[in-house]
Amino acid sequence: MVVVMTPDATDAHIEAVISRVRQTGGEAFVSRGVHRTIIGLVGDVDRFRALNLRRMAGVADVIRVSTPYKLVGLARPPGRSTVFVGRTDTRPGVPIGPGVFTLLAGPCAVESLEQTFEAAEMARAAGATLLRGGAFRRHSSTLAFEGLGEAGLQILAEAGHATGLPVVTEVTEVGDVELVAGYADMLQVGARNMQNYALLDAVGRLPKPVLLKRGIQATIEEWLMAAEYIAQRGNLDIVLCERGIRTFEPATPATLDISAVPMVQSLSHLPIIVDPAHASGRRDLVLPLSRAALAAGADGILIDVHPDPESALCDGPQALGGADIRELASAIRRLAPVMDRRNAEVATPAPF
Amino acid sequence: MVVVMTPDATDAHIEAVISRVRQTGGEAFVSRGVHRTIIGLVGDVDRFRALNLRRMAGVADVIRVSTPYKLVGLARPPGRSTVFVGRTDTRPGVPIGPGVFTLLAGPCAVESLEQTFEAAEMARAAGATLLRGGAFRRHSSTLAFEGLGEAGLQILAEAGHATGLPVVTEVTEVGDVELVAGYADMLQVGARNMQNYALLDAVGRLPKPVLLKRGIQATIEEWLMAAEYIAQRGNLDIVLCERGIRTFEPATPATLDISAVPMVQSLSHLPIIVDPAHASGRRDLVLPLSRAALAAGADGILIDVHPDPESALCDGPQALGGADIRELASAIRRLAPVMDRRNAEVATPAPF
Amino acid sequence: MVVVMTPDATDAHIEAVISRVRQTGGEAFVSRGVHRTIIGLVGDVDRFRALNLRRMAGVADVIRVSTPYKLVGLARPPGRSTVFVGRTDTRPGVPIGPGVFTLLAGPCAVESLEQTFEAAEMARAAGATLLRGGAFRRHSSTLAFEGLGEAGLQILAEAGHATGLPVVTEVTEVGDVELVAGYADMLQVGARNMQNYALLDAVGRLPKPVLLKRGIQATIEEWLMAAEYIAQRGNLDIVLCERGIRTFEPATPATLDISAVPMVQSLSHLPIIVDPAHASGRRDLVLPLSRAALAAGADGILIDVHPDPESALCDGPQALGGADIRELASAIRRLAPVMDRRNAEVATPAPF
Amino acid sequence: MVVVMTPDATDAHIEAVISRVRQTGGEAFVSRGVHRTIIGLVGDVDRFRALNLRRMAGVADVIRVSTPYKLVGLARPPGRSTVFVGRTDTRPGVPIGPGVFTLLAGPCAVESLEQTFEAAEMARAAGATLLRGGAFRRHSSTLAFEGLGEAGLQILAEAGHATGLPVVTEVTEVGDVELVAGYADMLQVGARNMQNYALLDAVGRLPKPVLLKRGIQATIEEWLMAAEYIAQRGNLDIVLCERGIRTFEPATPATLDISAVPMVQSLSHLPIIVDPAHASGRRDLVLPLSRAALAAGADGILIDVHPDPESALCDGPQALGGADIRELASAIRRLAPVMDRRNAEVATPAPF
Repeated sequence: MVVVMTPDATDAHIEAVISRVRQTGGEAFVSRGVHRTIIGLVGDVDRFRALNLRRMAGVADVIRVSTPYKLVGLARPPGRSTVFVGRTDTRPGVPIGPGVFTLLAGPCAVESLEQTFEAAEMARAAGATLLRGGAFRRHSSTLAFEGLGEAGLQILAEAGHATGLPVVTEVTEVGDVELVAGYADMLQVGARNMQNYALLDAVGRLPKPVLLKRGIQATIEEWLMAAEYIAQRGNLDIVLCERGIRTFEPATPATLDISAVPMVQSLSHLPIIVDPAHASGRRDLVLPLSRAALAAGADGILIDVHPDPESALCDGPQALGGADIRELASAIRRLAPVMDRRNAEVATPAPF
Repeated sequence: MVVVMTPDATDAHIEAVISRVRQTGGEAFVSRGVHRTIIGLVGDVDRFRALNLRRMAGVADVIRVSTPYKLVGLARPPGRSTVFVGRTDTRPGVPIGPGVFTLLAGPCAVESLEQTFEAAEMARAAGATLLRGGAFRRHSSTLAFEGLGEAGLQILAEAGHATGLPVVTEVTEVGDVELVAGYADMLQVGARNMQNYALLDAVGRLPKPVLLKRGIQATIEEWLMAAEYIAQRGNLDIVLCERGIRTFEPATPATLDISAVPMVQSLSHLPIIVDPAHASGRRDLVLPLSRAALAAGADGILIDVHPDPESALCDGPQALGGADIRELASAIRRLAPVMDRRNAEVATPAPF
Repeated sequence: MVVVMTPDATDAHIEAVISRVRQTGGEAFVSRGVHRTIIGLVGDVDRFRALNLRRMAGVADVIRVSTPYKLVGLARPPGRSTVFVGRTDTRPGVPIGPGVFTLLAGPCAVESLEQTFEAAEMARAAGATLLRGGAFRRHSSTLAFEGLGEAGLQILAEAGHATGLPVVTEVTEVGDVELVAGYADMLQVGARNMQNYALLDAVGRLPKPVLLKRGIQATIEEWLMAAEYIAQRGNLDIVLCERGIRTFEPATPATLDISAVPMVQSLSHLPIIVDPAHASGRRDLVLPLSRAALAAGADGILIDVHPDPESALCDGPQALGGADIRELASAIRRLAPVMDRRNAEVATPAPF
Repeated sequence: MVVVMTPDATDAHIEAVISRVRQTGGEAFVSRGVHRTIIGLVGDVDRFRALNLRRMAGVADVIRVSTPYKLVGLARPPGRSTVFVGRTDTRPGVPIGPGVFTLLAGPCAVESLEQTFEAAEMARAAGATLLRGGAFRRHSSTLAFEGLGEAGLQILAEAGHATGLPVVTEVTEVGDVELVAGYADMLQVGARNMQNYALLDAVGRLPKPVLLKRGIQATIEEWLMAAEYIAQRGNLDIVLCERGIRTFEPATPATLDISAVPMVQSLSHLPIIVDPAHASGRRDLVLPLSRAALAAGADGILIDVHPDPESALCDGPQALGGADIRELASAIRRLAPVMDRRNAEVATPAPF
């Protein structure tokens, strides 16, 4: 950290800052300039932040120099992590990380056994190695579909079992975490809950991988801090998911921040995938944005599929139907090798 | 709603839309143009939304014409509501609404009995009629102050009792709602939880007023929809609180959307107050922004006070000290009459 | 400036930075930490910026500590400037600055002699002391009104002469500066041209006050830098005008950044006024936002008036008619004294 | 267009709207609903806009249904255009459009003959078929490099001649258009000038292709309207260039709106390329974003190259050096065929 003093700061002001820093075991180095003095701090940044130096007399600004996330930050030497989903004693799990391009696909909402099985089969046939699906949903309109709840989790788990695909589903409340973890192989924390610390705390204490979506209003740093919060609770199996940020552009529901993919990779060792559908809101944009995600270096994508998008109860306009998903699968097959990535292997379906 | 057909939509496409609308009991009126046909829908908008018309063949766009919030929307004839906080059989409660300018003040965080009593007394002396204070806080850093929890609620309630001020405090989790409601006269839903529907549901079922802060990324419409969600559960005692939105401007932590005050008043009958501190992040901006809120027509402001801002455990840089709060009180006293508002009366302290 | 080195920067890297800084006559102070070294620079910031230190090996970041604007920045001791418009040997000019609240009003576009005279008279009667009006306009649609050009300038000047109000009008191109300056007492640089350096250069060389609108995408710092650019050419008679920034909120055409008023006043001695109409886009928001501007500490407001807003050729929805402007005038008369401001005096109309 | 009436609009209000529409030769179709009446308009949208219907009594809203750009909008049947740069009687010119992936590369700023020739040779060797370079630059700091002016244009033209690459350079002022057009094969309109209508007018009257960058604050619709403005002057040889928009994310100077590539292609027949450097501001992001642009369907990219990025006078941090550009060239060679695009052919160097 660097403390910048005001032009009229006195020696007493400077001494007070140094003294407060040293009391916490830190070191302070003073550079006196003609107009201003700056003080460089060395030590535990969390302790320094608790000092509220910015409020001290004569302090103009406190500038953070080092990154505030340690566990999810890039190690030295830098390397990239792989998270395995659905790992058991007998299965290695599906990898998300370097060298692989993982397709997570399934229905936005689990509507029925039939629809879910059909969507799961579509997903598997297209090369998906993880099945995603929503069982809990909350919406502002009383008429809108709010999910099947535990029945939906059961359907999803059965569909995963039938296709051999580990299952990813969203959890929105602390009270549901245990229930959802009983069915799912990976827990998704949605964009709206990216800073729901109680929920982050709960999933951080579980031995299950977490898919952490970026908040629509979150900076990359806030997103990594949320991941750090999970990691501090003991769970480092975190996959980040870029899904678009809110900007002034009205043509799309959110602006996919494609730069976040290489930017995150320059700051963190965690895998990062992209959800191209919620940012674009349109089926015809999902394919080009999926290709862009792969080419930008993402470790995978998250896709909505539906056997009959026209009748989908949730987010139909952006769900891919049969022809769309086959076109996407073909594009991935051609592009992935150029990016030195293979498709994650399709796990052999488990016998019933 | 208006359905806009594509230029190449056929008669069969148009008939299909009309037929789907009529099945739900709605009416459809067709305007055939040279290049396009548009279809006006009359009936229950929620039902129309569930039809997914946008996905039908030949449909270019579906444009919503009426507002989606009914309970919190402006009535005809338009009028403005007053919410009373701390109303009991023996006290009328403190009003927030037209004709009054209500000052909600207190410590951002309840740190100790002494600090809270001192801050409460500062607040009361400055004309505050509601005592705000935080007992539950969650932060990403393990070292940061996370609140005293129930002990904090007790302190706050005692300070309210001593000063005669009803108490407002934030609730961040569904599981805490009952506990917090046992101590507080008004529950605050923070900006991060504006779309936490489980929490909105819980406070919507309580017979206590709710202070609903605008999410940092929320449009005015989304904010009013969140209020509608609370109102649909039976609780119409909602006060909105503008606290700044996230923009590209780095000079302030958020951009106070002052236009939201008259804009909300043209759309909803609910009272609206302003939190000038979290948007500006600086004590010296709190005073001018408070005056601006009052002049723009807000029904009140929410202010941090601290007996010793330099040592505050939370948000110290924006908390007002003794001299600041007296200057603010003086400004309100001079400006409120010009805006045809009186200060909400200071309730007589209850005897111990 | 502070140069932050990477954790693996070598002594040679550090020496190279110091040496480059010293070559330009600057001083460098080194603070070696456990993990990182930081180097504080003292001297001419413009020279430092030209060094491209950020590109040197071992440099992680270069942090600017002092503000980059000198001429428009706050002096020590801080004071606020007044700009006089229409000053001649025989008239003192109309002040914009502390202690006064100046109303600049007139038609968005000069449409005809009659409309302009009528609007000017409405403006004057409401307490305006400066007449604004647009003669040059460019729009993307070929059918839209593009202004009367020099004929419009003549009309405006005559209306100003008749009412005794100095005249403010926008100039959009370098080639028009001389022409416009021949008729106008103050030149407005519009939001779209805030970084049109050729235009800033031209108005910076004139002995006429400049009204510099904030760009819809401009940070406060970029805005002050644009003012600095004008000031560097010799013209310090600059008035800033906040008119809203582009955000995600669709309810208003732009979000009025009311915090910019006190923020600019904490950074610069220049007067600052507010244009409440272009941010709100609605006549019914102009009045509350005008009051908010005054209460926030602005030195004036810029208002559209039109004898018949329904038929206005430009921006009619936000122009005030007769009843609106009288209500505004009344609000200003009541609020200004509370803010320790008087209306700028209405100049005595010059004899024909 | 659709006119939405207020719930309390009278028959007289409705008749007045219809009558005003019919006076301009348009047709109006009325749909009376239980709560509201809507009126569909058919005819010339530009005429309708000039009617100011929104200001009429009883009108709640006017909703535009068709797109406001005709010349640059998608034709029926939809097809994509190719723009040829540097076409003469004897050379076909370099294509930008479907089936090709065009690399525009060169120095951000022309600093000297030697640097420009070296950069041009680097560009050509990497597969660039167009040479870009800046001769006119304006900056807010008096010390910053402002370009060599006409001398720079001469150097650039010579470098283009020597390498056989047609030349693209920016023009920032109307007064320079003729001069720049005398040297360049394609004129670039920068982001800051996207709505500089005088400049758009000038380049719209030239028989030279135009590269139109998106304004940092511009919506896709505003960008296409700017292109329409150029096209209306007779010049349809327009290539759009996405370069990032301003958002709240501070990690990058701008947020590259990758969705704009397929979105624009669904709205317009014009070619679209991407400038990955100005959005990312960092050399290490240029490669992944270039790949993403290609994969998203862009027709080309615009790249800064410099023989010695460390010493570049302009935007050095994002300029590619020799090794970077070779890596980029290799990535394009591998990815382009997967996207069914070939590199634009390298034109044979013209003899001196």
